[in-house]
Amino acid sequence: MIVKRGMNCQFAFSGSKKDFMLASSAIFRRQQFLIRSLGSCTNQTHQKRMQGTKALSGTSLEPDAEHILRAITPTLDRNKHKGMAGKIAVIGGCREYTDAAPVIKSYSPELIVHPVLEESYSVRDQDKLSISGKILAEVDKWMERFDCLVVGPGLGRDPFLLDCVSKILKHARQSNVPIVIDGDGLFLVTNSLDLVSGYPLAVLTPNVNEYKRLIQKVLNCEVNEQDSHEQLLALAKGVGGVTILQKGKSDLISDGETVKSVSVYGSPRRCGGQGDILSGSVAVFLSWARQHLSTAEGGTSISKINPTILGCIAGSALMRKAASLAFQNKKRSTLTSDIIECLGTSLEDICPAC
Amino acid sequence: MIVKRGMNCQFAFSGSKKDFMLASSAIFRRQQFLIRSLGSCTNQTHQKRMQGTKALSGTSLEPDAEHILRAITPTLDRNKHKGMAGKIAVIGGCREYTDAAPVIKSYSPELIVHPVLEESYSVRDQDKLSISGKILAEVDKWMERFDCLVVGPGLGRDPFLLDCVSKILKHARQSNVPIVIDGDGLFLVTNSLDLVSGYPLAVLTPNVNEYKRLIQKVLNCEVNEQDSHEQLLALAKGVGGVTILQKGKSDLISDGETVKSVSVYGSPRRCGGQGDILSGSVAVFLSWARQHLSTAEGGTSISKINPTILGCIAGSALMRKAASLAFQNKKRSTLTSDIIECLGTSLEDICPAC
Repeated sequence: MIVKRGMNCQFAFSGSKKDFMLASSAIFRRQQFLIRSLGSCTNQTHQKRMQGTKALSGTSLEPDAEHILRAITPTLDRNKHKGMAGKIAVIGGCREYTDAAPVIKSYSPELIVHPVLEESYSVRDQDKLSISGKILAEVDKWMERFDCLVVGPGLGRDPFLLDCVSKILKHARQSNVPIVIDGDGLFLVTNSLDLVSGYPLAVLTPNVNEYKRLIQKVLNCEVNEQDSHEQLLALAKGVGGVTILQKGKSDLISDGETVKSVSVYGSPRRCGGQGDILSGSVAVFLSWARQHLSTAEGGTSISKINPTILGCIAGSALMRKAASLAFQNKKRSTLTSDIIECLGTSLEDICPAC
Repeated sequence: MIVKRGMNCQFAFSGSKKDFMLASSAIFRRQQFLIRSLGSCTNQTHQKRMQGTKALSGTSLEPDAEHILRAITPTLDRNKHKGMAGKIAVIGGCREYTDAAPVIKSYSPELIVHPVLEESYSVRDQDKLSISGKILAEVDKWMERFDCLVVGPGLGRDPFLLDCVSKILKHARQSNVPIVIDGDGLFLVTNSLDLVSGYPLAVLTPNVNEYKRLIQKVLNCEVNEQDSHEQLLALAKGVGGVTILQKGKSDLISDGETVKSVSVYGSPRRCGGQGDILSGSVAVFLSWARQHLSTAEGGTSISKINPTILGCIAGSALMRKAASLAFQNKKRSTLTSDIIECLGTSLEDICPAC
């Protein structure tokens, strides 16, 4: 089904300011350590990075993620109305995840859920063509209004369902709608690379295993830990300039032209579902980055950077900061829902609303 | 389906009194600034407004909304019993918003949900007449007990469903039940103006786009930002004295006779669903305003004002105050559910229970 949501619907306040300040200073100390530890990053370039825009030069491996986040986040304006900060659709959920639509809807009245996707078990072969046609018509009604699609979370791997999703991807691409692909969406595109190959508005967010499969399929080799940056660059180039956010200890991002790293201290807890927050956050900031570039006067160092890269950097930084804050409070019991509760505080800390 | 709710079921306490006092004083300062800034409002009329009832003279653009709210809110009385503060029915929800009845019911045990509305996809043509008859009979069982209907939230635009809702509107009108129309309900009445035209107990609460469509349909022209008050007045007159609450930076309210503005400081966040709180709050206060007028000794300045206008002013003021308080706490992560959590505190601040 499709879930539409406002740009900030997943952000919620949690923890007192005091807690956060403590967390923040601890994070900062660890950041300093991490940054100093980065072989490719001398103290001199670290100084540069801390100077904001200068840190965005193509030569800097670790850009000032918080500066980028601040730069692309739209100001709140009383003259704006609902929808002007953008609209995101998540294409995900399937029967395997418990007839997802009513369940997802019951999580929050903020979510608009369209139960349109069907699976093989409920469709006779002779009806498949007409039904996939109806599904596509239903999605097309909304396509033009979307500022970004997130494709994959909880989709499952039903052949008929994935066939419908492939068609949705083609239509999104025709309409120049940015697409963030995660989870089962990565299973789909790894087996059908032409769905995203050469589309500059596509972002793939693979975890360790999904990255392995991508490397094997595109570069026909194993993952190489030593030359990870060069391999990621080659992978992104191999898929025709699609942006890839490789999740890990540090998040590595490449569009085939450059490689960026986000090492903001996150959480050592590896609870399921963090990838869903990341893909959602990347979708938000990617849309905001494109909005920023369409309005910003040219010539700023940010406006020279690929907006999909900017979106990945900002989304990764916010996610890691929120995860770190959640871990400060919940330690080993940290759940993804705890991280969601920390997104608002983390965003406010980086980019105060007013 | 139909959702019935007690008058205060959506009000819940949130935040410490101390937090609120800080927020409140900040809001008050901004209100003073806004009121002083209103071109049409000299300091002299501001002084008058602050004196309470005098501020309600037809010449005052910005009435003392909090005074009105206090005046029409019924006192809590141990001798009263359940239902005496009134009953509201919300006619909304549809399959597109995911088989709404069980989902809505799951949000709160306070809600009584009747899943009676059907959509085209589930009804054969030859059955439509008998089914719409049954639906209407079901609604009529309750109609006399309603003090106000809210029609539209999440209704969707299914032709058969909207046809049933049209019949419900006609019956409500025959029973002199006040109606607040929002969302998809506005889509319905904009295309069938006769459903509300000339009904003094109808309130329309259009947002920017819904207002555009109304202006085009009724006045056959574009929205005119310069003469917004005159245009709203003409629109309300054009629909035969229906009250229109035009949502915006300031909320503008007109019944075709007068124009009022509510500029209480709200929130710059434009999260979806705020309109649903507003329509619900207007329904509550409109019912209370009518109750007040039916019991108040004549001659007070409030009893001279159209109760639908009073309801809109009070509903708008409460909504904006709660939104402002929620934004103080949640900033960019503010959701409509956070605003709901602040309704109780805001109401108590304006109108202490005892």
